[in-house]
Amino acid sequence: MASVLARGLPGLPEVSAGDDLAALIVGALGGAELSGGHLVAIAHKVVSKAEDAVVQLATVTPSRRACELAAENGKDPRVVQVVLDQSQQLLRAERGVLICRTLHGFVCANAGVDASNAPSPDTLVLLPADPDASARRIRARLRELTGQAPAVLISDSFGRAWRQGQLDVAIGLAGMQPLDDWRGRADAAGLELRATWLAAADAAAASAELARAKDSREPVVLIDGLQRYLTAADGPGAAALLRAPDEDLFL
Amino acid sequence: MASVLARGLPGLPEVSAGDDLAALIVGALGGAELSGGHLVAIAHKVVSKAEDAVVQLATVTPSRRACELAAENGKDPRVVQVVLDQSQQLLRAERGVLICRTLHGFVCANAGVDASNAPSPDTLVLLPADPDASARRIRARLRELTGQAPAVLISDSFGRAWRQGQLDVAIGLAGMQPLDDWRGRADAAGLELRATWLAAADAAAASAELARAKDSREPVVLIDGLQRYLTAADGPGAAALLRAPDEDLFL
Repeated sequence: MASVLARGLPGLPEVSAGDDLAALIVGALGGAELSGGHLVAIAHKVVSKAEDAVVQLATVTPSRRACELAAENGKDPRVVQVVLDQSQQLLRAERGVLICRTLHGFVCANAGVDASNAPSPDTLVLLPADPDASARRIRARLRELTGQAPAVLISDSFGRAWRQGQLDVAIGLAGMQPLDDWRGRADAAGLELRATWLAAADAAAASAELARAKDSREPVVLIDGLQRYLTAADGPGAAALLRAPDEDLFL
Repeated sequence: MASVLARGLPGLPEVSAGDDLAALIVGALGGAELSGGHLVAIAHKVVSKAEDAVVQLATVTPSRRACELAAENGKDPRVVQVVLDQSQQLLRAERGVLICRTLHGFVCANAGVDASNAPSPDTLVLLPADPDASARRIRARLRELTGQAPAVLISDSFGRAWRQGQLDVAIGLAGMQPLDDWRGRADAAGLELRATWLAAADAAAASAELARAKDSREPVVLIDGLQRYLTAADGPGAAALLRAPDEDLFL
């Protein structure tokens, strides 16, 4: 019987700029085993804070466009400026919602810029500049500290088109196959499974979210049972989950 | 420590029209306990088969529109006709992909009509006509058979805008809160969590998918650890996960 177990990791301290996140995770584990068969799923906020991917609102001078968008959407012009700075494309600006394609290529509200769980009320937390590189770095450091190289996934909560609510998705990944391609493989009856191409890393991010409560200070979740998706190499990362703009029907 | 465990249920026999799916699940459990704290996640195909939500291609006469769309997209006109019959709106028809809003309101490829895992090569499997009602019915029958009323979730694999790969989402639900609304609640630092509204049922569907292999004949997955989302009442179902068309920025 296949089984997957996701466990929130308690005891991680508040994370600040410059912190060694991998060391904090190992510390929070106490003596508990970390194995190469684990996936370590990390909510991106603590990665962003450790990397100092934050902006002080007081340092931001909004452009005319940011002021206009802010007025139309009931937002702080400085926040809008930071969102625009983090975007390569603004897809929608309606009803107070800015849907952006980020510098990395992710499509999400406010380019992932967030005031909740920020170090202070005048601070915005950005997405990590290169979340796949962050995942590889944390994985390498975990290997250094423990001798084990679990997969590392960095997630954020994104809204979706057509469906209510948010779902955690993978924005950074190392040591896990992001997609499990069943296209062209036969199903149990020998028929071709034409459209089956599982976003395994996004499913893992969603699983992790269920094992943490938003107010629990448990940004790290350990998942066991995903060995069939794990790889010794860091692999293509979460960037492989981005559909190319010219292949997307909703850009 | 919060933890969530998803286990594929082996031993479910091939499901046919008229089968009592709840009884088959109880049978596959053997003596194993089913509790009111479980979520029973079921891939919709076995629900559709039990409900005979299938179409024989030989019985379909394609309309002129179906023939035109089929020619433009390299598809069988009879399959396109069935897809149109299951749709209230065709959002995109490009590069062989038909993105539809189904009669239920779900936005997905081919209106959820699928030839893989069908009873025979000339048969298409549809989504259940009313997946929330199916979930409620299966839950009631499980309660009848075991005295326990676990939550029941029915899932399908949907593609997403902007991201590669598919993810299982909830299309039917009973006994679980589909959304966990944190909007306006405070985060751990006392700041407002403005945009946090977790699609808990979709996260559970994605978790279940990781505990099954597509070719494993394990359409049923038991999830433990979601008690905080489970409810005695059947609740609003997966219909609550649909964003109203006039509130959607991508319809």
